[in-house]
Amino acid sequence: MAKSGFVKERLRSFVERVERLEEERAALSADIREVYAEARGEGFDTKTMRQVVRMRKLDRAQFQEQEAMLDLYLSALGMR
Amino acid sequence: MAKSGFVKERLRSFVERVERLEEERAALSADIREVYAEARGEGFDTKTMRQVVRMRKLDRAQFQEQEAMLDLYLSALGMR
Repeated sequence: MAKSGFVKERLRSFVERVERLEEERAALSADIREVYAEARGEGFDTKTMRQVVRMRKLDRAQFQEQEAMLDLYLSALGMR
Repeated sequence: MAKSGFVKERLRSFVERVERLEEERAALSADIREVYAEARGEGFDTKTMRQVVRMRKLDRAQFQEQEAMLDLYLSALGMR
């Protein structure tokens, strides 16, 4: 019973941690929507903005991948 | 030119704000994955946990809906 009570408490603790983090995440999503709404209010096309944000993310990912590959080759050749 | 420079700066500012918020959101998603990993490490079934989290969210939404409806009826009847 003591052990089962402990397990229940652990489970509750994990679930509540997840819920708190999900709430914070939802708040950030709302903030993001608000930034887009503000931009729309100033006449920017938010559909294009969303596309730009996606493309910049892809660019960064490709850049990092390229950097990692370069690192690997430089290490392999003892240049780093 | 001055106006176009201003518009460019506004656009850049909006895009960078979105990117910062998206980064914070991604960090929270990573935190959530970590909580689940920790729970899995203690022997909890995370698939069931995820289901529980979804069901509790639904419960809360239904409860809030019910509360809002009650509020509406009480107000309509001058009881609030």
